[in-house]
Amino acid sequence: MMTNDHTAATLQLIRDEQDIRDLGYRFADACNRGDVEEFRSLWARDAVWVIDDPMNVRAEGAAAIAGTLAQLRPMWDFFVQMPHAPVVRVDGDRATSTWTVSEHARHAADGRDYVNHARYDDELARTPEGWRYAHRRYGYYFLDDGPRAGAAAAPVRPGPGIH
Amino acid sequence: MMTNDHTAATLQLIRDEQDIRDLGYRFADACNRGDVEEFRSLWARDAVWVIDDPMNVRAEGAAAIAGTLAQLRPMWDFFVQMPHAPVVRVDGDRATSTWTVSEHARHAADGRDYVNHARYDDELARTPEGWRYAHRRYGYYFLDDGPRAGAAAAPVRPGPGIH
Amino acid sequence: MMTNDHTAATLQLIRDEQDIRDLGYRFADACNRGDVEEFRSLWARDAVWVIDDPMNVRAEGAAAIAGTLAQLRPMWDFFVQMPHAPVVRVDGDRATSTWTVSEHARHAADGRDYVNHARYDDELARTPEGWRYAHRRYGYYFLDDGPRAGAAAAPVRPGPGIH
Repeated sequence: MMTNDHTAATLQLIRDEQDIRDLGYRFADACNRGDVEEFRSLWARDAVWVIDDPMNVRAEGAAAIAGTLAQLRPMWDFFVQMPHAPVVRVDGDRATSTWTVSEHARHAADGRDYVNHARYDDELARTPEGWRYAHRRYGYYFLDDGPRAGAAAAPVRPGPGIH
Repeated sequence: MMTNDHTAATLQLIRDEQDIRDLGYRFADACNRGDVEEFRSLWARDAVWVIDDPMNVRAEGAAAIAGTLAQLRPMWDFFVQMPHAPVVRVDGDRATSTWTVSEHARHAADGRDYVNHARYDDELARTPEGWRYAHRRYGYYFLDDGPRAGAAAAPVRPGPGIH
Repeated sequence: MMTNDHTAATLQLIRDEQDIRDLGYRFADACNRGDVEEFRSLWARDAVWVIDDPMNVRAEGAAAIAGTLAQLRPMWDFFVQMPHAPVVRVDGDRATSTWTVSEHARHAADGRDYVNHARYDDELARTPEGWRYAHRRYGYYFLDDGPRAGAAAAPVRPGPGIH
């Protein structure tokens, strides 16, 4: 039989791991519904959000991160993020998670599809309100942004919260 | 150290949340294998299954719901449901879950593809046999039902269990 | 209130089930990153890996299984496995899991896409190092290997570890 101390530690680790997976699930759910307030609540105050080349998004601070989503989201008629295969490691009050992510969206401007497979590499911090993202970096395995009318068309327009 | 009462409550919540995610996993697995009996076992006796416009399926009661699957499933050469990002909230003997779901199937009649992204919004009830669906509603983010030969072809034929 | 024995047994089952889901997540993650050493660590020493017709891969033993991945992986410019809907059953020191899996890859040789939906049916063994795959069998619901230039081109070249 396990001691009470062992039981408590095992239970806490299971809870932590599930909370970290849940954070990734809530992230996708908030993106897909376009819920900027829910999305903002998932980040630590001084968090950093990076989307790699060729999107080249970098936002710092939960407010700027939420502003970035608020700006990007209307670009799409629909946007669906599908997170897979969470691999979580907890180390005290810090943790990492990695996900295989697929996205499918449609550009509102011209109806072309945006399809990608990527990897989220995350650092998380335990806060008084629970686990929050300290750093998320999205790196592409594959990206199909559809045929564009002109080569000058950029996939992401620079603006507030995008550096 | 946690008290025994706290431990028991935390453990019960973790078990409930996992059982609710498992129900969604078993649902997809039963659909994909075409296992109508397993599918039926996931619903409360007086459950309601709604698939939104343009499919417009509504079935009431576990027997009618299973009958609806039994009728719909042979429409497809293959049918694959992919559930993502479960967000679960437990409140005593009731709970809700939401999922981002993708489906890919092929119409047996003419070989055209059926592809969609959608959202399942669920209400669940704790029963003596475990958590069961009381209400599932499927709402589309995106639907591509393929090019059809005639506009009169309906994606779902009315029949028993479809109202 | 639960007894300590009941608590310990419930906690162990939750841990086992999660470890078994995690094994499937780490499997996909290792495939997608092309991490052969991590991939090898997920199998029992005398494990068997089967990929059904028309791929017809069968590898026996963790070393041969890892060698098979090492040989197959460079066939693809990118390879993304997306595991869904884990259904897990634990029975003492043995367990089963089933997954609905989608894969998307691109052939390095000619740039054609490889897309499939399938089912992983798994047998697992509890080892001193944790749960490991004893047997994984991949059976296709759907396979699109792209248009090929010549009918003689085989999707899998025979070689070490493929029987």
